[in-house]
Amino acid sequence: MTSDRMTKSNIEPPSLEALLVLTKQAMARTNDVIIERLGSDVPLIPQLAGHLVAAGGKRMRPMLCLAGALMGQRSSGTPDLPEAAHLLAASVEFIHSATLLHDDVIDMSDKRRGRDTANALWGNEASVLVGDFLFARAFQLMVLTGDISVLDMLSTASARITEGEIKQMSLAGEPASPLEDYLEVITNKTAILFAAAAESGCRVGGGTDSECLAMHHYGLSLGRAFQICDDTLDYAATSDGMGKNAGDDFRDGKITMPVILAWRDGSAQERAFWQRTQAEGNINEGDFEEAVAILSYHNAIERSLAAAEQEIDLALKSLSGLDDSALKSALISAALFSVKRSY
Amino acid sequence: MTSDRMTKSNIEPPSLEALLVLTKQAMARTNDVIIERLGSDVPLIPQLAGHLVAAGGKRMRPMLCLAGALMGQRSSGTPDLPEAAHLLAASVEFIHSATLLHDDVIDMSDKRRGRDTANALWGNEASVLVGDFLFARAFQLMVLTGDISVLDMLSTASARITEGEIKQMSLAGEPASPLEDYLEVITNKTAILFAAAAESGCRVGGGTDSECLAMHHYGLSLGRAFQICDDTLDYAATSDGMGKNAGDDFRDGKITMPVILAWRDGSAQERAFWQRTQAEGNINEGDFEEAVAILSYHNAIERSLAAAEQEIDLALKSLSGLDDSALKSALISAALFSVKRSY
Repeated sequence: MTSDRMTKSNIEPPSLEALLVLTKQAMARTNDVIIERLGSDVPLIPQLAGHLVAAGGKRMRPMLCLAGALMGQRSSGTPDLPEAAHLLAASVEFIHSATLLHDDVIDMSDKRRGRDTANALWGNEASVLVGDFLFARAFQLMVLTGDISVLDMLSTASARITEGEIKQMSLAGEPASPLEDYLEVITNKTAILFAAAAESGCRVGGGTDSECLAMHHYGLSLGRAFQICDDTLDYAATSDGMGKNAGDDFRDGKITMPVILAWRDGSAQERAFWQRTQAEGNINEGDFEEAVAILSYHNAIERSLAAAEQEIDLALKSLSGLDDSALKSALISAALFSVKRSY
Repeated sequence: MTSDRMTKSNIEPPSLEALLVLTKQAMARTNDVIIERLGSDVPLIPQLAGHLVAAGGKRMRPMLCLAGALMGQRSSGTPDLPEAAHLLAASVEFIHSATLLHDDVIDMSDKRRGRDTANALWGNEASVLVGDFLFARAFQLMVLTGDISVLDMLSTASARITEGEIKQMSLAGEPASPLEDYLEVITNKTAILFAAAAESGCRVGGGTDSECLAMHHYGLSLGRAFQICDDTLDYAATSDGMGKNAGDDFRDGKITMPVILAWRDGSAQERAFWQRTQAEGNINEGDFEEAVAILSYHNAIERSLAAAEQEIDLALKSLSGLDDSALKSALISAALFSVKRSY
């Protein structure tokens, strides 16, 4: 933890509250846009997509987009956020929702955030197609902003998400995967969309180039930290509001940072354990507890969370060139919260 | 068949040849763009997407896009097609390929055009994700054209494709579906992309508004005719170069024009047959031959192909305001060919 970080965390409490308050009004309008734009003459689309969108979740990505727009607006001096900011925030949520629908098909999941998944209720066909619809609709909303630079950012982010997910498939069952590969996966599948949401929001909000770049880097580091924590908590948390059950990744052979660290430092016997459970998928009663014990022995949970904290330090540094404001303080608090919530 | 049509078909032979010749050079460049833009650091992407793209097929959509660009170029007077035309033609092929990958996942197909499908070779997960990648990459290519109007056309087309496919799902097993619903399905899932390909090509080629509109309507009618023929031939053709085996739709309970016509005019006994085979999916040896016999009794094949011919008449009318040229003649021949190939 750098001294810079220590100072800031003394000033700003780790909390999402301030950012939620600052974006509350804008988010209400974005939620209206989301509902309006789910419309289709084909009834299954609003039914299925509405099921997913109503499930809510954290709405992290549209919130980041709106925060970017508010940051941009401060420098442009316009009173209200332009409609483009809401179209873009909705668009980012649609891209994320499309990936969730397709992920659930791929994972054959039947639960997400404690509710039945769309594929469990309507079947894989509908989930694949409605995911495609949401993706296309996202691009229609971006076109409505009239700003081709945001189409550039978000089409690139969309391609990178799929590259991240495909690379993740190739790491599955490979506990000896290099840490760099894992970092590439989480950057692509999560962080790039966080970055694009924050940067493109700032752009349509009227932000300067340096503000947009700051928001990009903030989103990128926050996204990496967020994903490292999410993956790590799969071995640490009891099933909570996190959106998945502890041990899911272990049972799926999904290779994340704690396992890579423990493999790297592991004995031959431990490696045999990872080989059997992750590569061969031969998992018996008590193996998850054994995995947690091995990770604990190597401090793999703490070291992973420390890596997330390093990313948060980078996120805070990204903001250092921006003028002080309530919004900047809120972004700092939110970043600190994203790792603090783990403990 | 209108007299106008009779005259034209006396002048222009039904053939794809002239259009193939006129677009040959441009298509070679587009094929290079397709190969270049399939690149990714994740090896599975060019492998899987390359398998699909190498399978080729008719490349109808990029050819229409290039024909549109050549039409536009005639009025703008520039010597070579702009790179944007090739980016766009590749983009249209990527959108189409993405829908094929997802269709094969949904249909659980293991053969397309006589080759193993991607999902049979690499699994559903990879097919879903590489489909998503191709879709995102298509939008990246459109962004490179710098023309937001083509993003508008193609994002709308993409959304309409999924709406068409979802609506098609809801018609499955319902032989009593109204003909209007079928026409809506084929317009959305096929014709809108043909229209957008031709129109957007004309736009980046430098065409006038009236040329772009003519190409839009030509593509729309051609797309409808193409899909009606494709669906009808499933009951008429022996397994040929058509890309599917005769009887596939019958076995899948996919409801198309001939069945809707035969149901509408059918006896109680015939309706019971359609009910058993299409709604209940209870298909026995000899039922496909029985279906063909019922369709034949009601002239349902001929009447469906006549509906396709009417669409071709509309396609030819769309071009009537354009100056005569070798390209216009080639587009007429290609349209006539798209129904003639059926006999």
